[in-house]
Amino acid sequence: MAYPKSLLQLNGIVPPMVTPLADYDSLDITGLEKLIEHIIAGGVNGLFILGTTGEAAALGYQLRRELIERTCQQVNSRIPVLVGITDTSYTESVRLAEHAAQKGAQALVIAPPYYYTASQDELLGYFEQLAKELPLPLFLYNMPGCTKMKIERETVRQAANIPGIIGLKDSSADMMYLQKLRQMMANRPDFPLFIGPEELLAEFILMGGNGGISAGANLFPELYVNLYNAAKAGDAAATRELQKKVIQISNNIYGATQHGSSCIKGLKYALCISGICSDQLAKPFHQLSQSEQKIIEHFLAEMPVVVAKRS
Amino acid sequence: MAYPKSLLQLNGIVPPMVTPLADYDSLDITGLEKLIEHIIAGGVNGLFILGTTGEAAALGYQLRRELIERTCQQVNSRIPVLVGITDTSYTESVRLAEHAAQKGAQALVIAPPYYYTASQDELLGYFEQLAKELPLPLFLYNMPGCTKMKIERETVRQAANIPGIIGLKDSSADMMYLQKLRQMMANRPDFPLFIGPEELLAEFILMGGNGGISAGANLFPELYVNLYNAAKAGDAAATRELQKKVIQISNNIYGATQHGSSCIKGLKYALCISGICSDQLAKPFHQLSQSEQKIIEHFLAEMPVVVAKRS
Amino acid sequence: MAYPKSLLQLNGIVPPMVTPLADYDSLDITGLEKLIEHIIAGGVNGLFILGTTGEAAALGYQLRRELIERTCQQVNSRIPVLVGITDTSYTESVRLAEHAAQKGAQALVIAPPYYYTASQDELLGYFEQLAKELPLPLFLYNMPGCTKMKIERETVRQAANIPGIIGLKDSSADMMYLQKLRQMMANRPDFPLFIGPEELLAEFILMGGNGGISAGANLFPELYVNLYNAAKAGDAAATRELQKKVIQISNNIYGATQHGSSCIKGLKYALCISGICSDQLAKPFHQLSQSEQKIIEHFLAEMPVVVAKRS
Amino acid sequence: MAYPKSLLQLNGIVPPMVTPLADYDSLDITGLEKLIEHIIAGGVNGLFILGTTGEAAALGYQLRRELIERTCQQVNSRIPVLVGITDTSYTESVRLAEHAAQKGAQALVIAPPYYYTASQDELLGYFEQLAKELPLPLFLYNMPGCTKMKIERETVRQAANIPGIIGLKDSSADMMYLQKLRQMMANRPDFPLFIGPEELLAEFILMGGNGGISAGANLFPELYVNLYNAAKAGDAAATRELQKKVIQISNNIYGATQHGSSCIKGLKYALCISGICSDQLAKPFHQLSQSEQKIIEHFLAEMPVVVAKRS
Repeated sequence: MAYPKSLLQLNGIVPPMVTPLADYDSLDITGLEKLIEHIIAGGVNGLFILGTTGEAAALGYQLRRELIERTCQQVNSRIPVLVGITDTSYTESVRLAEHAAQKGAQALVIAPPYYYTASQDELLGYFEQLAKELPLPLFLYNMPGCTKMKIERETVRQAANIPGIIGLKDSSADMMYLQKLRQMMANRPDFPLFIGPEELLAEFILMGGNGGISAGANLFPELYVNLYNAAKAGDAAATRELQKKVIQISNNIYGATQHGSSCIKGLKYALCISGICSDQLAKPFHQLSQSEQKIIEHFLAEMPVVVAKRS
Repeated sequence: MAYPKSLLQLNGIVPPMVTPLADYDSLDITGLEKLIEHIIAGGVNGLFILGTTGEAAALGYQLRRELIERTCQQVNSRIPVLVGITDTSYTESVRLAEHAAQKGAQALVIAPPYYYTASQDELLGYFEQLAKELPLPLFLYNMPGCTKMKIERETVRQAANIPGIIGLKDSSADMMYLQKLRQMMANRPDFPLFIGPEELLAEFILMGGNGGISAGANLFPELYVNLYNAAKAGDAAATRELQKKVIQISNNIYGATQHGSSCIKGLKYALCISGICSDQLAKPFHQLSQSEQKIIEHFLAEMPVVVAKRS
Repeated sequence: MAYPKSLLQLNGIVPPMVTPLADYDSLDITGLEKLIEHIIAGGVNGLFILGTTGEAAALGYQLRRELIERTCQQVNSRIPVLVGITDTSYTESVRLAEHAAQKGAQALVIAPPYYYTASQDELLGYFEQLAKELPLPLFLYNMPGCTKMKIERETVRQAANIPGIIGLKDSSADMMYLQKLRQMMANRPDFPLFIGPEELLAEFILMGGNGGISAGANLFPELYVNLYNAAKAGDAAATRELQKKVIQISNNIYGATQHGSSCIKGLKYALCISGICSDQLAKPFHQLSQSEQKIIEHFLAEMPVVVAKRS
Repeated sequence: MAYPKSLLQLNGIVPPMVTPLADYDSLDITGLEKLIEHIIAGGVNGLFILGTTGEAAALGYQLRRELIERTCQQVNSRIPVLVGITDTSYTESVRLAEHAAQKGAQALVIAPPYYYTASQDELLGYFEQLAKELPLPLFLYNMPGCTKMKIERETVRQAANIPGIIGLKDSSADMMYLQKLRQMMANRPDFPLFIGPEELLAEFILMGGNGGISAGANLFPELYVNLYNAAKAGDAAATRELQKKVIQISNNIYGATQHGSSCIKGLKYALCISGICSDQLAKPFHQLSQSEQKIIEHFLAEMPVVVAKRS
């Protein structure tokens, strides 16, 4: 398989897109289009749909398929579209991947199957079989907080030698793991490492990381692109300034409520009051309370970053 | 909804059936039929398919649907069939439940959606919505080791007041939780509590619990039925004797290998060499090594319990 | 070393005594005497001081020494006194043990050193060295919630062959561990197993366990002695009745507040309003709030168990 | 209390000194002197004794006192000496602090009491009482891996307003926590934040952190000082180069063995074969196996950093 060069050199900011919903089982189609345009206008390097931030696991398969099709159509090859196919069932992962390829996506992203835990050997075998069978190149996704299973460094090292596996996103928030992995993979510049938690993006790029799958880039794509560029250029002072805003976003938007879903809820509400898309959540999530909403409203009113409103 | 009386008084041993596979994505149909007959012949009170032991999460949806249909046909109403509909997607849980009702299952079983974590309020709301929409009565399933989310006692207490929610299976292996729950629900004899881990079945029944969803009852159904009866009758000495065998099974069959899948792997291999069904596993699991197989072979040869072979 | 027969057959209820304090660094001497008499009057089989419930780790060494001396004097050989010597420093454990022997204690109790974690090999070596050097027989104490380190079953099995190591207290609340351990040690009736968490005492004794180190026996010693006797006699129905009260105590006295210290705080407050000893806590613990106190007051007023008041 | 200006502006590298032992309960006095000189010669900004790396919790009190006295004497005010007084007993912490003040130490370091867990309120009250009673200024020490209790950010913020509490060392390895804390304390340049895990030192200083309590600086003090200086100057490229060596040290010296003690064991063995001090460990730790020793020997032979040998 020959991959497009743009994909093999993927780096920078690739937002994990939230899934705009009209109802728990149907898309907010206008919101989806606006959101994609808003993100692309921010200068990002790719778009990752059906990840954790995209509530993928909570969506019905029909909806996931529709989202893939509409997103690929709207993006229209301006930037690479990466599609999450994480599933507890191998069969369903492969089926979704085939759909993604047909609709024009550029790459796939997979975290370990996450109901049972497996051995690292089993995990490596799983990646190997997938890579053989999948119609598109594959990024691994380390997300132990949701999957209970870490992709150990040695497993990454071996998986990186499998044709078709082309990079990794790490959302462990464990910088000890990630810095050691980065150094272990230093001789593999063709295997980019992306970081999930945006609070750690600045230091990861300063230390040589390749990019960020930053949730906040749904809302403020330019901020994350600027931060990436400053850090990439080794400008520690400018990076620290931009990082302050990222932490404020984390404290005020994701910190408005609790539980694993807090980032999604905060982001969707912020996007909603910014006129971009609906704040509807997939089940079983409940919307923010009024007092939690106020925290976000107040923050956005004060936030010294212009939020493009395209209503 | 009026439920059959037999279901509302469900107690005793309800084996969580393994799913006999010919290949990772197709059923071992002959094995399935033999296994069902083997289990029913042991005198159990019900059959639970598509649970953790059934590898449900790892199976494709088409296969799950076929399993439901074939199982209901084979059981042919001799005992109640309970169908696991645990899913990260509400939509897919409901769809599978509708299929189960059409094919003749008696009840459904659901654990919390398990990729994200949610608040207990969200979980209670989720159960409430499901109960309204589902065509069959529902057992809750507490399985924090796989779902990362506990169904807290207070949530169980409230959920037990929702029409259509008729009992709970607890696989936390946390007897502090379960004993306190049992006492909290003492005034609800119509809401049975079942225990998953069979190593704790004896003491749970001695203390007043209602039954066991015991994986080992795939292999030795009579043993678990006898243990249940002894404990139910308050015969502590006989219970302790039978419990010894249960612990031996756990040590030798489930303990032959490690990881979360060890019980499934051990059971399937033991069923295979007992001539009942295939030991094929769903992906990403690997089969036992030869040395692990030897442990089980040796144990079964020594085990002073007759394993019915019906080939 | 020849141990007194009474000690080698130790079983039944051995309360882990709270340490009555006048101030965070001085004993409530009158309270100590009353408490000891109250406990002994309840028919218990031994007394364990300087355990977790005794706040041992939080006490200064001078106070620990004084407590040992006064307790041995007051008990005056009516029942065996077991002294906790758990410490992160081997040297300090040995020094305290020597003091305990001089003052007349009958046995020692030790949990793993708990700041660092060590390998099971290191732990076994540690027990071996201690047993050689200590002047009194030693019980092991598995308390992973506080020590972060489990004493694995295989380590217990090997340690049980070391002369001078004569039993184990398990406070893991992990019945899977304890039931498997009980069965593994079935051929060692001379090596008694005690359970810490009293909520699980009933089932542990019904299943063949040797005794309980039950914190609630500070307050209601007869209740735990009666429960032990009923369960030992295999009377499941009577055991369940008594167990109800134990769970009520747990819910209302230990559950009045939260955190690891809730049992100690609840017990000390209940002992205080029962006229037995002061409710002063060691640092850094704060006393119960008024609303938490009310829960306990209300419960004790309603509790259908007579609390002996000996003021 | 007026603190010396040098102390209030403490930053840079402050090695957590290993404790050279002749035997588990006696000091390697010659090794101690050599080690102190080796470290000071490396240009560090302070010396922290009786921390985690110093095996403090495992040492007898008499030995701790002797170590304080000898270290203060040898350092002779060339750099500030910080003394760990972490203890489960408030009384013993205060006693050790008084000894440290008498012998000439400049500051104290304390982690939460670590057998029980306490509430954050109790923890804050504990720090407040200590600060009033202690004769020297106090650094807080967040080390949840050993203490099971996190000092939450809000607790740090409040504690930083207590006179006598002058900074914090964080060894959580949780950069999300630490970066958010750093930003929360941005208006408190007088309250320095130090990082424990040296694998994360580079990024912490690049992002604005104040210093590192880096265990590897026992062995290669200049390396950590150089890394600190490069990162402080915002030179990302030079920082990354030096960071490579730090990761190699971590992989080869601390990674030679496992368990919580691996860093101490690796360091002591490396110091021993570098001719600096004994590799004797406190109980219950066992020395490295020969194959583990070989990994370290091989690494040191290859390591392109000159290890000063001052025998």
